[in-house]
Amino acid sequence: MHYHIVVYILGMVLRVEGALMLLPAIVGLMYGEHQALSFFIMAAVTFALGTVMMWKKPAKFVFYAREALVSVSLSWILISIMGALPFVINGDIPSFSNALFETISGFTTTGASILDNVEGLSHASLLWRSFTHWVGGMGVIVFMLAIVPMTSGYNAQLMRAESPGPTFGKLVPKVRESAKILYTIYFGMTIVQIVLLLLARMPIFDAFCLSFGTAGTGGFGIRNDSVGSYTMLQQGIITVFMILFGVNFNAYYYLTGRDKKQAFRMEEVRWYFIIIAVAILLITGNIAPMFDSVFKAFHHAAFQVGSIITTTGYSTVDFDKWPEFSRGILVLLMFIGACAGSTGGGIKVSRVLVMVKAVAQQIREYIHPHSVCCIEFDKKAVDKRTVKSILVYLAVFIFIFVGSVFVLTIDPKWDLLTDFTAVAATFNNIGPGLAGVGPMTNYNGLSLLSKYVLMFDMLAGRLELYPMLVLFVPGIWKRR
Amino acid sequence: MHYHIVVYILGMVLRVEGALMLLPAIVGLMYGEHQALSFFIMAAVTFALGTVMMWKKPAKFVFYAREALVSVSLSWILISIMGALPFVINGDIPSFSNALFETISGFTTTGASILDNVEGLSHASLLWRSFTHWVGGMGVIVFMLAIVPMTSGYNAQLMRAESPGPTFGKLVPKVRESAKILYTIYFGMTIVQIVLLLLARMPIFDAFCLSFGTAGTGGFGIRNDSVGSYTMLQQGIITVFMILFGVNFNAYYYLTGRDKKQAFRMEEVRWYFIIIAVAILLITGNIAPMFDSVFKAFHHAAFQVGSIITTTGYSTVDFDKWPEFSRGILVLLMFIGACAGSTGGGIKVSRVLVMVKAVAQQIREYIHPHSVCCIEFDKKAVDKRTVKSILVYLAVFIFIFVGSVFVLTIDPKWDLLTDFTAVAATFNNIGPGLAGVGPMTNYNGLSLLSKYVLMFDMLAGRLELYPMLVLFVPGIWKRR
Repeated sequence: MHYHIVVYILGMVLRVEGALMLLPAIVGLMYGEHQALSFFIMAAVTFALGTVMMWKKPAKFVFYAREALVSVSLSWILISIMGALPFVINGDIPSFSNALFETISGFTTTGASILDNVEGLSHASLLWRSFTHWVGGMGVIVFMLAIVPMTSGYNAQLMRAESPGPTFGKLVPKVRESAKILYTIYFGMTIVQIVLLLLARMPIFDAFCLSFGTAGTGGFGIRNDSVGSYTMLQQGIITVFMILFGVNFNAYYYLTGRDKKQAFRMEEVRWYFIIIAVAILLITGNIAPMFDSVFKAFHHAAFQVGSIITTTGYSTVDFDKWPEFSRGILVLLMFIGACAGSTGGGIKVSRVLVMVKAVAQQIREYIHPHSVCCIEFDKKAVDKRTVKSILVYLAVFIFIFVGSVFVLTIDPKWDLLTDFTAVAATFNNIGPGLAGVGPMTNYNGLSLLSKYVLMFDMLAGRLELYPMLVLFVPGIWKRR
Repeated sequence: MHYHIVVYILGMVLRVEGALMLLPAIVGLMYGEHQALSFFIMAAVTFALGTVMMWKKPAKFVFYAREALVSVSLSWILISIMGALPFVINGDIPSFSNALFETISGFTTTGASILDNVEGLSHASLLWRSFTHWVGGMGVIVFMLAIVPMTSGYNAQLMRAESPGPTFGKLVPKVRESAKILYTIYFGMTIVQIVLLLLARMPIFDAFCLSFGTAGTGGFGIRNDSVGSYTMLQQGIITVFMILFGVNFNAYYYLTGRDKKQAFRMEEVRWYFIIIAVAILLITGNIAPMFDSVFKAFHHAAFQVGSIITTTGYSTVDFDKWPEFSRGILVLLMFIGACAGSTGGGIKVSRVLVMVKAVAQQIREYIHPHSVCCIEFDKKAVDKRTVKSILVYLAVFIFIFVGSVFVLTIDPKWDLLTDFTAVAATFNNIGPGLAGVGPMTNYNGLSLLSKYVLMFDMLAGRLELYPMLVLFVPGIWKRR
């Protein structure tokens, strides 16, 4: 491990975070809240700490996969710790563990909350909560790569370690260009959503916070009933944007280029929309008797499907009260997740597709033992290494999942369904689960051990397992 | 598809089943039960049908993987249908669907029952139920291979398609020899268990039925409380034998040979015992306060762990009432399952081990992207094809699992935990699940659709997925 480089990168990330904390500080000031002070203080402290860590510029940037992985995972842990402190200082979330849970949940775009009464928070804290979603959605390191000029060569590994999903082909050769393009699209779409929500007469503060949460597919609401009390038009806008932010951003890049048809030929995106359409239809049919019109059933089904498959986690109604069949579909969508290269979590549609194809190939191989065939994706052959890594991903996913549920069962207070869906909802970065952690309740009732396990799961889910796992490989910490 | 050969093999299997049905018929006669008649009739009908199907001996035995897979899956379906008819004819289980569920559950060694009152059955029917476990445990086709002399060359594929678990090395080169060795060990161990149970003063009928259920890791009891009302010594004998029948039978073969140490060097067997020991310790500690002595807690923990990991499914107490932690461990064991090459079900310890190694290798590959390393099992390198097929197995397993749970949620009567554990308990060939299908209840309350899905799951679980899946590949039915 080249510690110099890791410390230097952590320093850069902290400086960026320090700058970002000025936003809630200023908003707090505008509302005349004393909580603004804590954000000013922590902005200064974080920026200063980052500057100290950057003091000694590494002589040469020798950079391997291990440095990239460790830099990314430690960055996320560090920004979560620093980002949690304002909540503790200003008293909005007095317990450090709870504040850390909330901040990790924010940055990882999970949206699982430990707050009983969200409406009791200051505007500064509410904005910071939602803003962490926006920053975490596209990635803090990707953001850094977009704004800080760096010698290229090693930042590709950094970006790869932080961005979600298996990638089948690069956007553009230069990493910094990619990062800039991604953030430009991201920024633009967020602005459009804010404007549309304002046109639909949503208060400006709500429009910003909810758009941050939608863009990052996070899901922190600023009201106790999530987004249940907004108008149907406002909810409808959120539905559309949740689904749009779950699309592979490469599609949007193609739309800005010459060959716009490329976007519509993307296999993953097509299946993403097919899955959404089928799920909405099935649930609408299933819950129709619970609403006074089919349109209303469709409205809520669409909202919930969009919210869950993109792993956002907003809710308009208590879907924990829906019939088993609809709840079953929602749990299934939790695991499928959004597209790779989007801000959403979960296993990702493209991985599921490759797995399905690998299964079909294996059956063919059983029938014709000597046939040699390969798996195609977007009409290109996928190399064997990628297929294997996706299959192993599933195994790792299941091991972490099962292990987590197992530790959660130690707390005798909750039933298996709560334990199972709590892990499903945090590991897939969704937010609300079912039963004890359903949409109308929160995670504060869990034991401290369970909370820390779920914090790990949120980070592992957002960073796609490996950056968090390598921290446990003893050999990686050897100085070299 | 060479239909001639498939029909011929099905005929052979039916003749074997017809002969086996004489056992319950004779036992029924000994107890003077009118139900004996139905078994005599169906023995004759099944044997006759088999003889008709064998009428036209295929000119040449050209045999490919597809014929082997289809022969195996159709054999199991056919023997289940024929084996269910005596229950319907003699009125012990009047509904054909229920009788089919019970028989599939028997042959697949699942032990999931639809009977409210087992004690109301005739001795003939009870014996047939338990005997199907014994036959299905080691496999009806393996049995046929052991007793019917056949031109070799194609029967290796038949045996491979029916025997559980990935195989790392052959027992003996000749298939018929392997089949004979396996059945000799199996038969011998069953006899020892019967004798020990008789010495422990168990009634002879019970000793036979319970030993058949233990040997096949099936789990059908002949009393309503499973084996709860037997003495602790009798339960203890069953505990030991359940665990022994979950061991890879290669180990027993090695023990009869020159190099006995080979048995103890088997990685899978060692881990199997480690997992059992750890699970028993954890559960004993967890449930100790529920019993008047730690020894009693240990006794029931050992019984239940042995019963679940080997996918037998007997119970001495209602473990659905145990704390979440213990129930969580049991659910975990349901999926791990027994050793490959045993009569038990589940994913199998060796597959889990290979998956864990594949994960460790993938993490190493992440850290050292250019390293080339391979996975070792029993100190031999596992080829990449095998590793991939095991990883795909997990994906197939999960797809079938999730799809099944999903169909079960359509029935609004049951909660998600019931649906989830019903699939877990049938797909892994265990028997009892939790909640609505817990050890003190049964599967009769499920809808007809759910029952047929679970029947498919039991067969798919026992035959390790592929033989059942190829039935749905349209191309396979093309005549050639």
